[in-house]
Amino acid sequence: NIVMHLSRKLQAGPLTGKQIVITAGPTHEPIDPVRFIANRSSGKMGYALAQAAVELGAKVTLISGPVALEAPPGCNRIMIETAQQMFDAVMQNLAGTAIYIGCAAVADYRPTHPASAKLKKSAEDDLSLQLRLNPDIITAVANAGERPEMVVGFAAETDDLQKYAQHKLQQKSMDLIAANQVGDGRAFGQDNNALEIFWEGGHKSLAEAPKLEIARELITLITERYHAKNSI
Amino acid sequence: NIVMHLSRKLQAGPLTGKQIVITAGPTHEPIDPVRFIANRSSGKMGYALAQAAVELGAKVTLISGPVALEAPPGCNRIMIETAQQMFDAVMQNLAGTAIYIGCAAVADYRPTHPASAKLKKSAEDDLSLQLRLNPDIITAVANAGERPEMVVGFAAETDDLQKYAQHKLQQKSMDLIAANQVGDGRAFGQDNNALEIFWEGGHKSLAEAPKLEIARELITLITERYHAKNSI
Repeated sequence: NIVMHLSRKLQAGPLTGKQIVITAGPTHEPIDPVRFIANRSSGKMGYALAQAAVELGAKVTLISGPVALEAPPGCNRIMIETAQQMFDAVMQNLAGTAIYIGCAAVADYRPTHPASAKLKKSAEDDLSLQLRLNPDIITAVANAGERPEMVVGFAAETDDLQKYAQHKLQQKSMDLIAANQVGDGRAFGQDNNALEIFWEGGHKSLAEAPKLEIARELITLITERYHAKNSI
Repeated sequence: NIVMHLSRKLQAGPLTGKQIVITAGPTHEPIDPVRFIANRSSGKMGYALAQAAVELGAKVTLISGPVALEAPPGCNRIMIETAQQMFDAVMQNLAGTAIYIGCAAVADYRPTHPASAKLKKSAEDDLSLQLRLNPDIITAVANAGERPEMVVGFAAETDDLQKYAQHKLQQKSMDLIAANQVGDGRAFGQDNNALEIFWEGGHKSLAEAPKLEIARELITLITERYHAKNSI
């Protein structure tokens, strides 16, 4: 193991010395101290991407929402809970980042006024929970002064996968988007995934496979696109 | 182990032959196929109670929300997701139940109109999510025609623990209530717990200890109260 570790250290990988920031997992948006809005992301895909990037020599910062996963060896993990905390952690780690991969399922909205004490059941049968738009992390990254050379996003869609993914790619000034079909038990929480990957003028399908395998293929593709962009 | 198993089978415990229904964990209330309202319950306390009851010879049905825990050996586990599903599973298992322990952190409210496709971010900065009151499981159990002889509830409170617990005990016609302080990282998700237990004319404090230890003390107390009630 020490030999493998050293040989990996000594071999220059295609991402050696490159700083990569990866977000993973869900965000939790508090309603009160015990309740929150969540989503079905398990973090497995983002963690697999972190491992695959470390394998190619990258210096990986993994910014993770609440998940029950071990950090892949060799990456720097920062745990956060809310979309706002994820936004702040990403912005603080943007300087010198070559590749940004936004794999987290960030909540679009948060409760506007989270309560500091547990809310009691009201006398009313119907309630209305006020929600406020969260900051859009990937748009902020793609428009930052210190914009990473590659900005990669994810789209998890239940319908019209290609249409939404290509729209999101352009609208958010990403370099590449990886889209997956969710709902009916697909992708979220599962060990397998399948991806449709789009970039300006290109498309690649990755058929269903274990997430680590899919992650290695995606990181390889991102690395190719990164070197292609930098050799122009 | 086979010997221990047999000797446990042959020894009549104080709950031998008694049917106990225990609810555990959070409920998830869908907003759309990928988003939901959740709470911080890990299910550890309810699962510890199921184990402690099996140890005393009970026939345990554990009705559990989504958690990452193994079912304790010897109990019949039913996995559910929403409060409505938990309500239905409890009602279907009430006949012949001697003791009901409602340990789950059931969501009081659910989104009124869960969407069948993933909701897109709207143009609005502010949204309002309509919520509808969920059925109150323990009140339904305590008022059922086939009411279990002991109905035990939990109260997780951030403030005024004793006041809310004693109010809930009477208001919901429970026989016993176990209250714990939550918030600031206490109880939810932790391996330790501390309980304040109230019944009509009685009170007992269980100081902080591992959840399985607390569970054994609570099951012993419930068993005493059960036999006291049945010997009148």
